[in-house]
Amino acid sequence: MIDLFYFVSPNARKIHMALEELDLPYAVRWVDITTGDQFAPQFLQVNPNGKIPAIVDHDGPGGAPVALFESAAILLYLAEKTGALLPDDPVARWEAICWTVWQVANQGPGLGQATHFLKYAPDGGHTDPYAQDRFRAEAGRVYRVLDERLAGREYLAGDMFSIADIACFPWTRLHRNHGVDVAEYPHVAAWSERIATRPSARAKIEDRRDEATKRFEYSAAQRAVLFPTAPEARS
Amino acid sequence: MIDLFYFVSPNARKIHMALEELDLPYAVRWVDITTGDQFAPQFLQVNPNGKIPAIVDHDGPGGAPVALFESAAILLYLAEKTGALLPDDPVARWEAICWTVWQVANQGPGLGQATHFLKYAPDGGHTDPYAQDRFRAEAGRVYRVLDERLAGREYLAGDMFSIADIACFPWTRLHRNHGVDVAEYPHVAAWSERIATRPSARAKIEDRRDEATKRFEYSAAQRAVLFPTAPEARS
Repeated sequence: MIDLFYFVSPNARKIHMALEELDLPYAVRWVDITTGDQFAPQFLQVNPNGKIPAIVDHDGPGGAPVALFESAAILLYLAEKTGALLPDDPVARWEAICWTVWQVANQGPGLGQATHFLKYAPDGGHTDPYAQDRFRAEAGRVYRVLDERLAGREYLAGDMFSIADIACFPWTRLHRNHGVDVAEYPHVAAWSERIATRPSARAKIEDRRDEATKRFEYSAAQRAVLFPTAPEARS
Repeated sequence: MIDLFYFVSPNARKIHMALEELDLPYAVRWVDITTGDQFAPQFLQVNPNGKIPAIVDHDGPGGAPVALFESAAILLYLAEKTGALLPDDPVARWEAICWTVWQVANQGPGLGQATHFLKYAPDGGHTDPYAQDRFRAEAGRVYRVLDERLAGREYLAGDMFSIADIACFPWTRLHRNHGVDVAEYPHVAAWSERIATRPSARAKIEDRRDEATKRFEYSAAQRAVLFPTAPEARS
């Protein structure tokens, strides 16, 4: 049994999809990151970085429990545990790993900041054209890089659906948050629609957020948890 | 022989350190990212993301050449190729992998944006207190997370120096750029000094930058390459 520490987010969705693809038994542990559950001492034992997703595999290496954090590390772990979701061919396998890491080092951070500066910061009254332009440009760059990679390829590592696709897919479903229209990136759009039909992409986890939180209408208290600023800026 | 595609940067330094630790033969391929070498078609064949570091291992799996990009993927590859720089114990091994991924998904992006908004953007006349506070706070967070991890541990995965330490070390050498004084994080400071004495950390690659570039005094042309903004912002 695997505990999946989860909140509604594209990063947590990766792990949910991988567990569904691999047909591994799991239990969802809801972590409300808008109220600070991620900073509870018990959770920091699982993920000292205080973010979701994280897992505890109670049937880890040698049968002992193992805790893992960072979505790319968890995807690599699940692929190694099962011998699935990575190509056997060594060159294709390393391509899949490079693109999985690319996601967490480029697509995730870039689109995360684009979402912040184009949506959440203005919601809080902070509109900075320089930062908005910077991250709009970065969002365009990551969609373009992905589009060029997917031209003539079914999946990121070639013919085989892999953890690289699982890593990149959930973010592309949120393209409107990134100041991007995914239709301008036709290879990404086609690949994203292809993946969206998979049972793992259609699987649902009960959404326990209240209605305002579902609409991303955060209270001042939620904003303080989600969007901390430097101590000297708080007063 | 391994080609190391390199420019002076903490991410490229990781791979240089790993190659030195592993005593693998390599040739430095200088990629001037301030003049756009990273967008040359030949380089994009190696790294479609257009960034350094990247490598080509001419003695890849099965003896065929293999190209790799993203520093964490390259570190994982070199560890797997040599059977070194990752613990044998499976739990410690996965801890090292989690922290390696943590670096590229948290420390690198966070400290990179802190450097941009605290130094490079103001150099170009753009000072945004909201973005500065946001990334100053994120910088403090990543140093704190690292400091808590290193309390009572010699290295990130425990007793053994691993690719996780190589990933995180070079960024901590640049703490002044992050609005941080590393002395406030005593476990990070002690660990960083410990690693700084290793021959791999003392190894040098000839610095081919001109004097102004070494001082990060970029020309307008260099800024346009390094800090692109959205197309609609350029005019």
